Amino acid sequence: MPEGSTIKMPYSQPPKQRSDEQKDAPADFFIERDGVRYAGVHLIIDLYGAERLNDMAYIEATMRECIRQSGATLLHIHLHPFEPNGVSGVAVLAESHISVHTWPESGYAAFDVFMCGDTRPEVCADILQEAFTPERITVSEQLRGKGL
Amino acid sequence: MPEGSTIKMPYSQPPKQRSDEQKDAPADFFIERDGVRYAGVHLIIDLYGAERLNDMAYIEATMRECIRQSGATLLHIHLHPFEPNGVSGVAVLAESHISVHTWPESGYAAFDVFMCGDTRPEVCADILQEAFTPERITVSEQLRGKGL
Repeated sequence: MPEGSTIKMPYSQPPKQRSDEQKDAPADFFIERDGVRYAGVHLIIDLYGAERLNDMAYIEATMRECIRQSGATLLHIHLHPFEPNGVSGVAVLAESHISVHTWPESGYAAFDVFMCGDTRPEVCADILQEAFTPERITVSEQLRGKGL
Repeated sequence: MPEGSTIKMPYSQPPKQRSDEQKDAPADFFIERDGVRYAGVHLIIDLYGAERLNDMAYIEATMRECIRQSGATLLHIHLHPFEPNGVSGVAVLAESHISVHTWPESGYAAFDVFMCGDTRPEVCADILQEAFTPERITVSEQLRGKGL
């Protein structure tokens, strides 16, 4: 993907919308899957052999795309560039957070996506794969707050 | 622990210090344990039956204490209060991040502590246990960027 190109994602679902009233409230209702009640899904996503890991604007745009397509609500976002290489970033969501830390010289990026409530965190892995074209991606899922 | 009390931690190790020059550089050298090279340690910490989970100033102070005692370097911190209950917060570190999301009405808090470089993330679980007096705490460790 050439530098400066826009992000075109292959996902056509419209994002879910929260009303203005909902934005001040936490998305903290619990989820139940196979009889287990939990607070949220936490995805640990590692990208190896990835590209554009020093492009902070692109990384932020990709995080925003993850949030939009997951149907989550952004409350605060902050990215930090390192010298000479690397970016760290966090997005606080009404539904928890997304974080990223990159090591461009090694082609490695560590993302985590933690979402509660009525969201689709699972779309993020595909969005990250599309955006950063890693040679290899690993995704592990943790159910947070099991048995609440 | 009464509301408004200061945080007294039972840890006496002096924090590690980074020089001003080091603060602009990422703490991105890799770690090796038992012959496996990796980027950092990611601790997923769940507190059940915990207290003071709606006290944002106390939560921030505890996060700062984790950072200090881990020997990490704080770059940015942001906490968000929810109505009527709950706090989300993230701290961006030179060595990655700490995040928290709380459900005070359920006594549940979800922390994650991701640290690279020459730090001591393992002290954080004890600090959180001391600060929030959970009935139960679970800690799982992920080595991020294995085999880099």
